[in-house]
Amino acid sequence: MAKANAFYAQSGGVTAVINASACGVIETARRRKDVIGKVYAGRNGILGALNEELIDTSRESARAIAGLRQTPSGAFGSCRYKLKSLEENEREYHRLIDVFKAHNIRYFFYNGGGDSQDTANKVSQLGEDLGYQMQCIGIPKTVDNDLPFTDCCPGFGSVAKYVAVSTKEAALDVASMCETSTKIFVLEVMGRHAGWIAAASALAQEEKGDAPHIILLPEVPFVQGKFLKKVKETVKKQGYCVVVVSEGAQYKNGTFLADAGGKDAFGHTQLGGVAPMVAELIKSKLGYKYHWAVADYLQRAARHIASATDVEQAYALGQAAVNMAVAGKTALMPTIVRTSDKPYRWKIGEAQLSRVANVERKMPKNFISRDGFGVTAAAKRYLAPLIAGEDYPSFKNGLPQYVRLKNRLVAKKLPQKW
Amino acid sequence: MAKANAFYAQSGGVTAVINASACGVIETARRRKDVIGKVYAGRNGILGALNEELIDTSRESARAIAGLRQTPSGAFGSCRYKLKSLEENEREYHRLIDVFKAHNIRYFFYNGGGDSQDTANKVSQLGEDLGYQMQCIGIPKTVDNDLPFTDCCPGFGSVAKYVAVSTKEAALDVASMCETSTKIFVLEVMGRHAGWIAAASALAQEEKGDAPHIILLPEVPFVQGKFLKKVKETVKKQGYCVVVVSEGAQYKNGTFLADAGGKDAFGHTQLGGVAPMVAELIKSKLGYKYHWAVADYLQRAARHIASATDVEQAYALGQAAVNMAVAGKTALMPTIVRTSDKPYRWKIGEAQLSRVANVERKMPKNFISRDGFGVTAAAKRYLAPLIAGEDYPSFKNGLPQYVRLKNRLVAKKLPQKW
Repeated sequence: MAKANAFYAQSGGVTAVINASACGVIETARRRKDVIGKVYAGRNGILGALNEELIDTSRESARAIAGLRQTPSGAFGSCRYKLKSLEENEREYHRLIDVFKAHNIRYFFYNGGGDSQDTANKVSQLGEDLGYQMQCIGIPKTVDNDLPFTDCCPGFGSVAKYVAVSTKEAALDVASMCETSTKIFVLEVMGRHAGWIAAASALAQEEKGDAPHIILLPEVPFVQGKFLKKVKETVKKQGYCVVVVSEGAQYKNGTFLADAGGKDAFGHTQLGGVAPMVAELIKSKLGYKYHWAVADYLQRAARHIASATDVEQAYALGQAAVNMAVAGKTALMPTIVRTSDKPYRWKIGEAQLSRVANVERKMPKNFISRDGFGVTAAAKRYLAPLIAGEDYPSFKNGLPQYVRLKNRLVAKKLPQKW
Repeated sequence: MAKANAFYAQSGGVTAVINASACGVIETARRRKDVIGKVYAGRNGILGALNEELIDTSRESARAIAGLRQTPSGAFGSCRYKLKSLEENEREYHRLIDVFKAHNIRYFFYNGGGDSQDTANKVSQLGEDLGYQMQCIGIPKTVDNDLPFTDCCPGFGSVAKYVAVSTKEAALDVASMCETSTKIFVLEVMGRHAGWIAAASALAQEEKGDAPHIILLPEVPFVQGKFLKKVKETVKKQGYCVVVVSEGAQYKNGTFLADAGGKDAFGHTQLGGVAPMVAELIKSKLGYKYHWAVADYLQRAARHIASATDVEQAYALGQAAVNMAVAGKTALMPTIVRTSDKPYRWKIGEAQLSRVANVERKMPKNFISRDGFGVTAAAKRYLAPLIAGEDYPSFKNGLPQYVRLKNRLVAKKLPQKW
């Protein structure tokens, strides 16, 4: 295959390590100058391709690119933009191909979740149909850990570590205050459809009686009476109770706990999250003083406490994507294959994009404890290695030094209207 | 002075480094076995003295005590319990002296905020009045940074670092999402009366245009129109807007923003914090999509990202307290005296407890920017050195290794009823 340029884009919610994948892609491509020309990054994800806003990464120094490995969020901008099906909006797909053709792009790396893998797959098909040869490789990313075929998703391990560490720290705090003050601490974490992130808080349980005492997963319907009973028992036994609740925690009928009808000062619903709702429920029914926290973006941006395993895998998947493309492969996603739990060993595998697209991986039933308020030993065995190792960014003046790219755009070659 | 035992207690809200002060006290006392017998720690703070629940720290290994330096929260338990004035409740003060006498305690170290310094002062006076010679030394502690006479308070520097780092990380996140999704991020931090913690977020501003774009301080009355105008301008210019709001942000009439009349599903007020309220205000008036976070205990417990300066000072103040007591001093609090901004230099000073007690230090007016939405260069000059340096705890299996003490109680010698 003749030398051609590559396109790389970040998609959906960003993570602490998606830039590590970008780093893996760009550094590996730079080592393969025999077949890959420049790596263009989409400004704000796939929109960058549609709008022909291509960032020329060759303008960035080797040092800046290396700095991506320790920089959270999406260095080129991301977007929440799902391409419709080929039938519904063929125009968009054709536009992508037009832009790729105009800039001699024959390598397409799309770094995202299920939707992105779907898009990468469609672009691959269309290129084939149109006789424009391309190597389309999806690179997995999602804090939700819900992609199939890969043992875990880059981004998840670092959120898991943040949540486990934060739960451990906050639990020590409330434990030392509980005699005369706060007895309840509720931490809300991400995970609208699956409880992977909330489940990871269980890694803070190093000894019997350790927090979190209750985990509320989206997979287990919330039953108020049972929950309050457990809270009461825990306070009696431990003196305090730490609850980690997934933002997606819900009643049996599918209503989110967070949508329980609260109104704010302006008369709107959706003021608070689920943490304040759960805390207030406990207060009103059991009378315990509470504190609550909602980590939100802090959890997925917390590069300062990223998992070394996660960073390494994110980088390796970016690297593997380029190697696969250079080897002439297409319509694939590199995956993490776990070969051993203890010691933890993994290698890179491959999955077909057509099979990955739009399949959500739920937590296995055997990961959820019998009473529904925690996770099993099997879950911890799975989760533990994913938070292993620290990979601190460099610091200056007390702050992490995250790289700022120049993000210079390539001159446009096509009409702006399409 | 004949050899006698020491009493140490932790008071009020705990911090990431209050145990570092405990470490300083105990390690220094162990080196002065010529004059200090055992160090007894109050179980749950001063309640431990009142209830004669004295933890024998001599039962802990040197390694466990050293581990306190890297362990957040209060290892012996803290309490929210303010002794009344001598006139109102002389009985309590007499009980303290009785317990101290019964256990030959003549060194009293009280680690806390303004109230604790007041208590230490009163105990000192009463001991003198009753002819029971004691050395009473207060050790400063408070994330609120509101004690007078000391340049800063242990605990604050680490919260400041957490808030600055988290603001920087979350801002990168929203910056990469803002084109098609979230444009507003609101982070709520502690500080009911003073804006020191919110102000520290300004350290994340390394270049022009950097977040936080708006800081809402309790010192500056909230004016809705002015605030919304600034939000709109910022989104127009930067594409997104990061707001850091102090939990104590308030209207001109002193009403907290958080008390703006919201009702939860159970009809109670005080569901949410101020962050969701501010986010929803922006949404309802300007239509921008938002995310918000409430750090709560996570910020003050975050030993994993503690400031090395803060840890060092917390330890040094514990050490100084013992040295002062051994030198025969009493009714004093060791302080941090800043001798130079650049390079940052500090030394230990002393303040009289009688002057410290119940005086709150507010942020100086020249620390607040003219428009009230930020801080000045003078504020940053003051704040910057306090977050300098990292002091990572040791990790095992991906989790920080925080020490667990045995906390064995000394046999009681007095009647339980008093």
